[in-house]
This record gives sequence, structure tokens and C-alpha cells, in this order.
Amino acid sequence: MSAIGKTKWAIPEGYIPSGSVSQDRALLSHETACILNAGDREANIKLSVFFADRDPVIYSVKVPARRTLHLRFNDLTDPEPVPLDTDYASVFESDVPIVVQHTRLDSRRAEISLLSTIAFGQD
Amino acid sequence: MSAIGKTKWAIPEGYIPSGSVSQDRALLSHETACILNAGDREANIKLSVFFADRDPVIYSVKVPARRTLHLRFNDLTDPEPVPLDTDYASVFESDVPIVVQHTRLDSRRAEISLLSTIAFGQD
Amino acid sequence: MSAIGKTKWAIPEGYIPSGSVSQDRALLSHETACILNAGDREANIKLSVFFADRDPVIYSVKVPARRTLHLRFNDLTDPEPVPLDTDYASVFESDVPIVVQHTRLDSRRAEISLLSTIAFGQD
Amino acid sequence: MSAIGKTKWAIPEGYIPSGSVSQDRALLSHETACILNAGDREANIKLSVFFADRDPVIYSVKVPARRTLHLRFNDLTDPEPVPLDTDYASVFESDVPIVVQHTRLDSRRAEISLLSTIAFGQD
Repeated sequence: MSAIGKTKWAIPEGYIPSGSVSQDRALLSHETACILNAGDREANIKLSVFFADRDPVIYSVKVPARRTLHLRFNDLTDPEPVPLDTDYASVFESDVPIVVQHTRLDSRRAEISLLSTIAFGQD
Repeated sequence: MSAIGKTKWAIPEGYIPSGSVSQDRALLSHETACILNAGDREANIKLSVFFADRDPVIYSVKVPARRTLHLRFNDLTDPEPVPLDTDYASVFESDVPIVVQHTRLDSRRAEISLLSTIAFGQD
Repeated sequence: MSAIGKTKWAIPEGYIPSGSVSQDRALLSHETACILNAGDREANIKLSVFFADRDPVIYSVKVPARRTLHLRFNDLTDPEPVPLDTDYASVFESDVPIVVQHTRLDSRRAEISLLSTIAFGQD
Repeated sequence: MSAIGKTKWAIPEGYIPSGSVSQDRALLSHETACILNAGDREANIKLSVFFADRDPVIYSVKVPARRTLHLRFNDLTDPEPVPLDTDYASVFESDVPIVVQHTRLDSRRAEISLLSTIAFGQD
């Protein structure tokens, strides 16, 4: 398959609720960046997390060729975890075309709630 | 009507929860790719489903001229069903312009939750 | 303000659940096409509703200059209502640039669930 | 980082429910425009709020360089608050590229419900 996607993606919305009705990993409140690398070369991605009142923090992510990675922001640890109950935003810069979709599962209340959108892509 | 759409579409998010509070088909947890073929020629679509740790699986889908198909990933069987509780992603390649929108209905808990987004389109 | 938008928009997803926990208009299960006409001329829009197994049905909609119309598909009557519990899709063709966003409020269960996405735009 | 985004953004959907099951700010029914300014210059933004039956109202918003602002429409006061239980739409015009995402948290019922989408961007 020929490559599909863009090399830069932005997600202005970001917020991981600290509360969860369940400790089951599948139902824990979380934010995910679903990354698709449909091409034939590994994607090396620089992920910048932006905040309201301090400088961005930089992470590094890889996605193998012809694979998808559903990256939970909750799981980032290096150089530091993403703080809970805090507004943030994110930008992905890849060396090959990728596609990025943003999803949140919120389980602060007894029932879960979902949101999702394709991120904003640009070359 | 003149054609509207793109010939390639990507949905990085994919996850069919195995649990459902109801066995009513309308309320069963499911993921759908809503495909619109507004043009005058049948759409022949190659659907590639990507995973985190193995090679993509290829399906074949047709949508008649001036029709919409709300395709449930749960209903795919040839060459194999899409596994439940598993991260996946999808790419649609059509021989005519189409438009694709992604929707999930999640009924793991007592109440249903919905997400939807127009997929990422490219020619 | 200079115009913003596109003249053609597509929403592949469409489904109005027949059930509602409430008969309050605000909480009744419904699908909406939110149309923004930010420009200085009235928008005359041809709305085509597509189905899985029959030909599209055509509606006519107007949005005044510098106004928004949150059009409920449930409210369409001429030439015929949009059937409930039925898969459909829609295309909007306008004589001036507009922006279209799709939203569903689903109140089949005790709690409401929401989905929304900017439609697919094209000139 | 080089700039990412567009200078004009539209969100046709807008509706702040007056009811909330909780008075906790995090769970209060609200609509948010998440704005990312990933570039090196402050963003000066003209925000126009459109209605169904009267002329738009203009607000002014600033987002510092390399920061995100999750702007609640509920918090706007100058020149006037955004009315509750009322259909509206919005357009953002910035002097530098930004990215805008729209989110609603609805807590009219006992459980919360979420929707989100990247806005429609144009230069």
C-alpha cells in the first residue's frame, strides 16, 4: 500500500480525569492517540505536549511499518508523566506519513462516556 | 449529482468491546464505518485492517451507486472476523470517490456511549 | 467577515433512534445538521438524503446571512419525513460557502449519549 | 517548532445546557473551544458568536506562544455572556496559525456525556 497521511498532527484538547469508577485498565479514564502507520517504513515521532502555563514537554514514540499504536497519554513516563486533571494539547511530528485520531474514555461517573475525532493534519 | 469524496480513507481508532448490556442488535457494542457513495458508479473498496503486532488483513466491500452502507466491523467474516477487545485501525481504498465516517456504540455498562468522526480522506 | 466554508458537505452517518426516555424536545433522540452561514448572502441549500436500498430524497433548506441553523432531521416533512431506526446519509449543496457539523443525541436508555463531527467539505 | 494550523476556524454546533447534575466546575455542563498556539508568537483572536435570529456578537481572546487555552464559552462575559439553552455557532480569526477543537460536556442527566471534533479550518 502507498503511504496515507500527513507528517504533522495536532490535538488541542487534552484532559485526563483522575477519577474512575473502575480500576479495570479497559475502563479506567484515559486519553489515547491512535496512530496508524500504513506505510513500509518505521515512523519516528516527536510528541510535544503543551500546557496553559508552562513550556511544552517532549516525548519520543515509534510505530513500526504497517502497524497501529493506540498510545495512552496515561502511560507516558519519560521524561515525566502527563499530569491528571490538567488541560493540555499535543503535536505529533513524524518522519513518514501517519494518521492520528484522538479518543477519551471518561469513567468518573458510574457510566463511561466517549469522545473521538481525527486530529488536525498538515505537511 | 457530481461525485463527492476521496478515494482513500483511514480510521486509526478501532476497538470492539466484547461486553454488551443488551443482545438487541441495535444496542450491541459495535464499530461502524459509514460509507457514502453519492456518485453514479458502484464503489469497489479494498479494506485493510491493521493491528499492533501482526500484518494487516484484507477485506472486500462494494457500495452501489447513490447508496450508503453502514458497515459493522463486527459483521466481517471473510477471510476472518475482526477480533474483539483488540486495538486495530483501517484503511479504505475505492475506485470511485466515497466519504467515510467512523462510529462506535459502546454498551459495556448499563448505558450506551457513542463516538463518531469523519475519517481522514486523501486521493 | 469574509466567507468561510465549502459549498458541498457530506455526512455518511445517519440514524434516528425511535426510542427516547423523555418526550422533552431537548432530550428527545435526534440528529442535527448544524449549518453556519457566516457570509453576507442567504444560503440556498439542496439536501439529499441517501439510503441503503432506495434512491435519495431531496429537501430544500435556506439559511439567512450571518446566521446559524441547527436543522433537526426529525423535523423534515417535505416531501416526506426521514424514517426512524433506518440507516441514512446526507449531502448538502449550497450556492454560497457554509460549514456543516453533525450531532446526534441518543436517549434510548435512561442517560443521554452524544456524538459530533465536522462533516466532510468540498468545493 | 514551526507553526501548525490555520488562521480561521468555524464550529457550527453550539449549545450550553442550563441543567447540571453537579455544581463541581469540572462536571458542570459546558462547551469548550480548545485552542493550541504551537508557534512562537502570541495569537490575537477575534471570536464571533452567531445565532439563529440575531446578529453575531464579537469577543476578543489571546493565547500566548507555545501554550494551549481551553476556553469555556460559559466563561465569556465581555460584551455579554453566551445565553444558555440557545443554538449558536462560532468563528475564530487569528493573526497567527492556531488549531481549534470543540468539546461539550453535558451533565443534564445523572451521567455525563461528551462530544468533540476538530473544528473546520481555513486560511
